[in-house]
Amino acid sequence: MNAAEPSLRSKPEATTATPPRDSSTADERRLEAGSPDSLSTEGRMIRKLLRMFGDPPFEFVLWNGERIASPRGCPIARIRVLDRGVLFGLLRDPNVRFGDLFSDGRIEIDGDLIQFLEAVYQASSGSESQPGVLRRIAGLLHRPRTNTLAGSRDNIHHHYDIGNEFYRLWLGRTMAYTCAYYPTATATLDEAQTAKMDHVCRKLRLKSGESVVEAGFGWGTLALHMARHYGVKVRAFNISREQVRYARERAKAEGLDSQIEYVQDDYRNISGRFDAFVSVGMLEHVGVEHYTELGGVARRALGRNGRGLIHSIGRNRPGPLQPWIERRIFPGAYPPALSEMMQIFEPWDLSILDVENLRLHYAQTLRHWLELYEQNLARVRSMFDERFVRMWRLYLAGSVAGFTTGTLQLFQVVFAPPDNNDIPLTRAFMYPS
Amino acid sequence: MNAAEPSLRSKPEATTATPPRDSSTADERRLEAGSPDSLSTEGRMIRKLLRMFGDPPFEFVLWNGERIASPRGCPIARIRVLDRGVLFGLLRDPNVRFGDLFSDGRIEIDGDLIQFLEAVYQASSGSESQPGVLRRIAGLLHRPRTNTLAGSRDNIHHHYDIGNEFYRLWLGRTMAYTCAYYPTATATLDEAQTAKMDHVCRKLRLKSGESVVEAGFGWGTLALHMARHYGVKVRAFNISREQVRYARERAKAEGLDSQIEYVQDDYRNISGRFDAFVSVGMLEHVGVEHYTELGGVARRALGRNGRGLIHSIGRNRPGPLQPWIERRIFPGAYPPALSEMMQIFEPWDLSILDVENLRLHYAQTLRHWLELYEQNLARVRSMFDERFVRMWRLYLAGSVAGFTTGTLQLFQVVFAPPDNNDIPLTRAFMYPS
Repeated sequence: MNAAEPSLRSKPEATTATPPRDSSTADERRLEAGSPDSLSTEGRMIRKLLRMFGDPPFEFVLWNGERIASPRGCPIARIRVLDRGVLFGLLRDPNVRFGDLFSDGRIEIDGDLIQFLEAVYQASSGSESQPGVLRRIAGLLHRPRTNTLAGSRDNIHHHYDIGNEFYRLWLGRTMAYTCAYYPTATATLDEAQTAKMDHVCRKLRLKSGESVVEAGFGWGTLALHMARHYGVKVRAFNISREQVRYARERAKAEGLDSQIEYVQDDYRNISGRFDAFVSVGMLEHVGVEHYTELGGVARRALGRNGRGLIHSIGRNRPGPLQPWIERRIFPGAYPPALSEMMQIFEPWDLSILDVENLRLHYAQTLRHWLELYEQNLARVRSMFDERFVRMWRLYLAGSVAGFTTGTLQLFQVVFAPPDNNDIPLTRAFMYPS
Repeated sequence: MNAAEPSLRSKPEATTATPPRDSSTADERRLEAGSPDSLSTEGRMIRKLLRMFGDPPFEFVLWNGERIASPRGCPIARIRVLDRGVLFGLLRDPNVRFGDLFSDGRIEIDGDLIQFLEAVYQASSGSESQPGVLRRIAGLLHRPRTNTLAGSRDNIHHHYDIGNEFYRLWLGRTMAYTCAYYPTATATLDEAQTAKMDHVCRKLRLKSGESVVEAGFGWGTLALHMARHYGVKVRAFNISREQVRYARERAKAEGLDSQIEYVQDDYRNISGRFDAFVSVGMLEHVGVEHYTELGGVARRALGRNGRGLIHSIGRNRPGPLQPWIERRIFPGAYPPALSEMMQIFEPWDLSILDVENLRLHYAQTLRHWLELYEQNLARVRSMFDERFVRMWRLYLAGSVAGFTTGTLQLFQVVFAPPDNNDIPLTRAFMYPS
């Protein structure tokens, strides 16, 4: 009865950003945990920093050779601080400055970058259990940029319009920039992205001849898949001009442009009636203050027997996105807790039929993206400077760690209008053998 | 790809509480929709009442033979009002008084009782879309009785201690008083209750030798099933003394008393570590103000690789239980919206892995209960007076209608501590062929 399914528990592959090397010299001072008095001023600053993060098992090596280890056991990573200014930056605003200093090459991590970041998340998860008020204040301080119609355009342009060629290097054949779905632990990235699209289409119970509206379509991959394999008509919305251009060319080249209309417009301007509403990986950019608006769009789009699916990064409880990611990578982004997501559905009496958490699938997807990224470093370097290269590496590795440590979740939510009684008895239809 | 699953869409069996009969007489006045001027004072009161409920397609027949039909189409049910006092009661507080007057036999419904109640829910769902403030005020007015330790004991005693013999008449062989799970549309009640228990055990991925804590165990059915078929040890909590007594006898008779400890105590007094936490059909009695307390109990009960499941009646959005049901049947009960349920999990960083909505399964379960109830009417009448007989019929039929119209939902939520990475890749293991 208790089928032993393969799981993604295996240790992440050693994605060593900077391979460990022995940088110890004869005259360096090795300072042990038990001797705080023997620490220099800089050493005491490091200690303070380690404590702020719940004492992860790290060893710092300063520009002058001084070493400071966490009091907690054997270090799993070595953090090399290359100049004195780094310390002041880290102490002032570690959550943002660490990423910047790493990108600038003023901090080096010896050891597995993902494991290092996992240890950061794990150690600080204790200090994250702070009272609600403090966490809310932290949330206000790191409030993401607003997603008005114009704000959304700027925010989306920042991330998605940096060049389709760049994304093509590491997203794999499908160009799907969202969590994949691994039916087996050995599935490849492309297989898993295709399986994800089928999983979504099955959950929506798409039938040939039906109509689908898609809010946020990336490079158009899901719309193409739905049109080709499920025989539906798709009207898809996206405000990233680079992505719209790319998707239109792709649909034309694949002879599917009569079935798909890619619209360069905001999801708030969706109108008309459809059999299904789907949005994969857009909600992160919507902003909680617009959730009820989004729900209204979905409610109006669906007739009585309509079905909807929203796929989004989320959290176990409300809290801001890691602030460096929000500032440098995804302006305006926010991964909601389920209680927050309910602001989409509850005001409109939309009925939640199914929620699935694909957290570990996203960790695996990101590992595959990071592998491809590292394999194609030469090409990335020909497009961007070293700062960008390191920034993107940190973002991908940090995201793996976010999902493996449970700091981030991935929710797929299926919903329907309240009076839709055309619901399969069981979910077995989602799992064809 | 789009498997055509059987669904529970079929019309409910004609559960005719009082069979329709032609009670028209020669001299009665038939008053049509278009002629409000020709209505008597009582007729105008009925019109007002119909409007309050969104004009469901009913015909009223008064004690004096006067007939008043809804302006909306052909009536699907006839409401016979047997005395003038009924009208004043209905106008003052229809949501509570209808149930009382029906129980007293002062209102008769000619036609299918379930269809009648479905039409009430459907017609009033429009008027339910009232602004949030009004709905919140309604919620305050119908605030359920509190569930302090002592309050819970009283509330639970009211419903569950009216006699095991009574429940045995219509719950079927399993004595499970919660939503069943119909793997096929033709499954019997007993088959579906057993399938529900297996569905829950699979979701929890129980392994032989593991330990389970159960919060609220009814007549002990699930604990017996888990012990017998999954080889686990169960410690189960319930405050209904009748149920505890019954469950202990049952476990002894079935030779499972060494594996199960039935504890007559409140869920708030659960202590110790377990592999799984399960609660099926208790949350309705917990009260939102105690959800975070319940979540703390679950969090402390589970080790890192623990799994939890909470199964509860719910709603698409916050709102009180139908007030007659809350007053006369389930004092202190409240079906939460998912946003409210999140108050169990989010404060404790518990991760939601899976939510399934089994709304139409509960409609089918209730249809089966109502059938058994009507089949055993003679026995029920030997135990209770006619008022009780009619009250219970209305409660069961009204609950069918609550689920078929989407007024009520049934959520099964699977959760785990945040750092539990022992999660199967897919949910296919829940669906053995």
